[in-house]
Amino acid sequence: MDHVDVPQFLGLLAVMLGVAKLFGALAQWIGQPAVLGELVAGVVLGMSVGGLVDPKDEVLHVLAELGVVILLFEIGLETELRKLLQVGGTAAVVAIVGVALPFALGYAVCWMLDLSNLVAVVAGASLTATSVGITARVLSDLNRLQETESQIILGAAVIDDVIGLVILAVVVGLTEGNEVTALGIAKTTGIAFGFLAGTLLVGTLIVTPLVRWVSRVDLPGTPTMFAVILAFGLAWLASVAGSAMIIGAFAAGLLVRGTPHAHEIEKGVAHLGHFFVPLFFVVVGAAVDVRVLNPLDPSNGQTLLVGSLLIVAAVVGKFAAGYAPFWFTGNKKVIGVGMIPRGEVGLIFAQMGFASGVFDTGLYSAVTLMVLVTTFVAPPLLKHLFPPVEPGQIPPKPEGIEELVTEP
Amino acid sequence: MDHVDVPQFLGLLAVMLGVAKLFGALAQWIGQPAVLGELVAGVVLGMSVGGLVDPKDEVLHVLAELGVVILLFEIGLETELRKLLQVGGTAAVVAIVGVALPFALGYAVCWMLDLSNLVAVVAGASLTATSVGITARVLSDLNRLQETESQIILGAAVIDDVIGLVILAVVVGLTEGNEVTALGIAKTTGIAFGFLAGTLLVGTLIVTPLVRWVSRVDLPGTPTMFAVILAFGLAWLASVAGSAMIIGAFAAGLLVRGTPHAHEIEKGVAHLGHFFVPLFFVVVGAAVDVRVLNPLDPSNGQTLLVGSLLIVAAVVGKFAAGYAPFWFTGNKKVIGVGMIPRGEVGLIFAQMGFASGVFDTGLYSAVTLMVLVTTFVAPPLLKHLFPPVEPGQIPPKPEGIEELVTEP
Repeated sequence: MDHVDVPQFLGLLAVMLGVAKLFGALAQWIGQPAVLGELVAGVVLGMSVGGLVDPKDEVLHVLAELGVVILLFEIGLETELRKLLQVGGTAAVVAIVGVALPFALGYAVCWMLDLSNLVAVVAGASLTATSVGITARVLSDLNRLQETESQIILGAAVIDDVIGLVILAVVVGLTEGNEVTALGIAKTTGIAFGFLAGTLLVGTLIVTPLVRWVSRVDLPGTPTMFAVILAFGLAWLASVAGSAMIIGAFAAGLLVRGTPHAHEIEKGVAHLGHFFVPLFFVVVGAAVDVRVLNPLDPSNGQTLLVGSLLIVAAVVGKFAAGYAPFWFTGNKKVIGVGMIPRGEVGLIFAQMGFASGVFDTGLYSAVTLMVLVTTFVAPPLLKHLFPPVEPGQIPPKPEGIEELVTEP
Repeated sequence: MDHVDVPQFLGLLAVMLGVAKLFGALAQWIGQPAVLGELVAGVVLGMSVGGLVDPKDEVLHVLAELGVVILLFEIGLETELRKLLQVGGTAAVVAIVGVALPFALGYAVCWMLDLSNLVAVVAGASLTATSVGITARVLSDLNRLQETESQIILGAAVIDDVIGLVILAVVVGLTEGNEVTALGIAKTTGIAFGFLAGTLLVGTLIVTPLVRWVSRVDLPGTPTMFAVILAFGLAWLASVAGSAMIIGAFAAGLLVRGTPHAHEIEKGVAHLGHFFVPLFFVVVGAAVDVRVLNPLDPSNGQTLLVGSLLIVAAVVGKFAAGYAPFWFTGNKKVIGVGMIPRGEVGLIFAQMGFASGVFDTGLYSAVTLMVLVTTFVAPPLLKHLFPPVEPGQIPPKPEGIEELVTEP
């Protein structure tokens, strides 16, 4: 039965979108990426401050997920598959080091603090993921998506998401006391990567004729809606195949980019993005409990200590990963910083750890604090290292960098 | 907590949008308005046939309501307030007769069949509303929204919705055994119309400067998102003020039409409309139980008889209302037919009657049948009486009709 008060929900959406746009504009005005403002809007409206936006609300959750799916589709639309494959090896190294190092550092922090082995594993795992949504949005805000560094970050973040799924499956198995086998891990990994490869292979053959065919229908917006249907359909298929929704949506974007209607679709989907994507960032922001930041509350002392150590592990681990592909002569700092934000993926780990009873409230808050800081420091840092360019303008960079990117 | 399986829901949305677009294209191919195809898509996917789309699903319900709000906003954007006020008197007569006559005929049918007074009142009430969404969408599909007949239908349908709210309040009072006073009815009526008048008065003063101000923000899509926020905000305010959501959204459209960014906003919102509006029609279609149509099932005999009589009452009552403004020299048939579809509003009355125990299953099904037939006959009839024109083309009509529209 129907429990949602629809008019009130419309009012809530109006407030969420209004505050997100206002804070987005303010962020831009003080020289920061708009997404930072949208995240702050979420914190302000969220449970710990304004109390208006409940990230656990079922309908909001679905709208936010539609937002991240549409965002990843848009990012896919702006990504050249050829270029992504070119940097594939570099991205894979960044991804693997960027998972292994934060995990090891996080585990070490917990071990130092005399926490149990299971707690250390789950805390370490919560440090591994990168929120591709936040970084991609920042790079898009800066008009820097086309650069080699950005392609490496995107590639690494996508691989990260696949690895993250495997880790999540393993950690859920551990917290539930199940046995975790090497064969099981290999199977999960194979399915996740196999889906992406299979989709791209089959898709390149059939998507262009399909778009041509549907665009002959004399109904306005048909190519755009076809693309949305493809993105949602592949997101669903990805999930059924044991991969992540956003990987399906990203693959849909890569496929549509090759079609003659890509530009028209990009413009149409952008309007859906303006609606759904800020809802995603507001919900991510709303899930953060800023009360753990209050140093005057003595009960926050231990949380702030553990959180600070986890922040160091999280930042150092990902930043160092940017330097892992030693042969890459581009801006390694940008890559390292681009991998830092944990966003909603980190929160999913934190909530999973809390719900299964592995984390107590203090540790849950410490992980939340790590997510909060990594999510909020990356956009301004990235902007500082990678100044925005006007659309179409060729960004200033040292000569010949692109040519020097060679796989090992 | 979260109960929706998001990837599966994305798959469902992909199927709903895909089938809606496919059937919409097919409807157009056989010379019918696209909305008819979307309604059929809903029936095919709905509970009584495909079993995929459950109109009671909370998230789908919200998305569908977003669809009708965006649709009414778009209709408002295409409506000139001055022109609407010009035909206001004519529209009011059509609306009032179009409520009174179907109610009287429906009451008479029930009285003839020896049904109780309360049943007759609720059944009569379920015949009163017009689904402005369906008619407006058909007129829009036919590129006929700008014509005097269309303006009268829209005006009458909006007034109808306000009257419908008053009737709903009265009927709910009756079914709950409460006392219904003339003062209460007057108050509800005053609030509903007062909201519309007040919003338009205040809005014309502040919306244009507001749009100018927000459009200076250097974020893509800002004017469009401002308009969406305004539409959602006014929909919510309308509901808080005791009026209907869609009236707030319609008012927002009327207000935005007067701003310098109206054209840009119209194009932007159209993309949101392509996504949300078909979801609304699919959900409306899915709520219809076509099993009551099976004449081989003997238990349907009484339902089909009562339903047929209600259909006659519903069609004759609204069609005759088109002739009520005797001074109008335009196409009265078009107006009468345009008022016929009951759509989701009729289903709301039917469900309310069923949930309160006033209707038994048979009568509920009979009212559903009436809704089904009135909703499905109107689009092709309207298309037949009001052939589509190309966008921008001046439709063929007898000379001087517009000049002859004078208020009594």
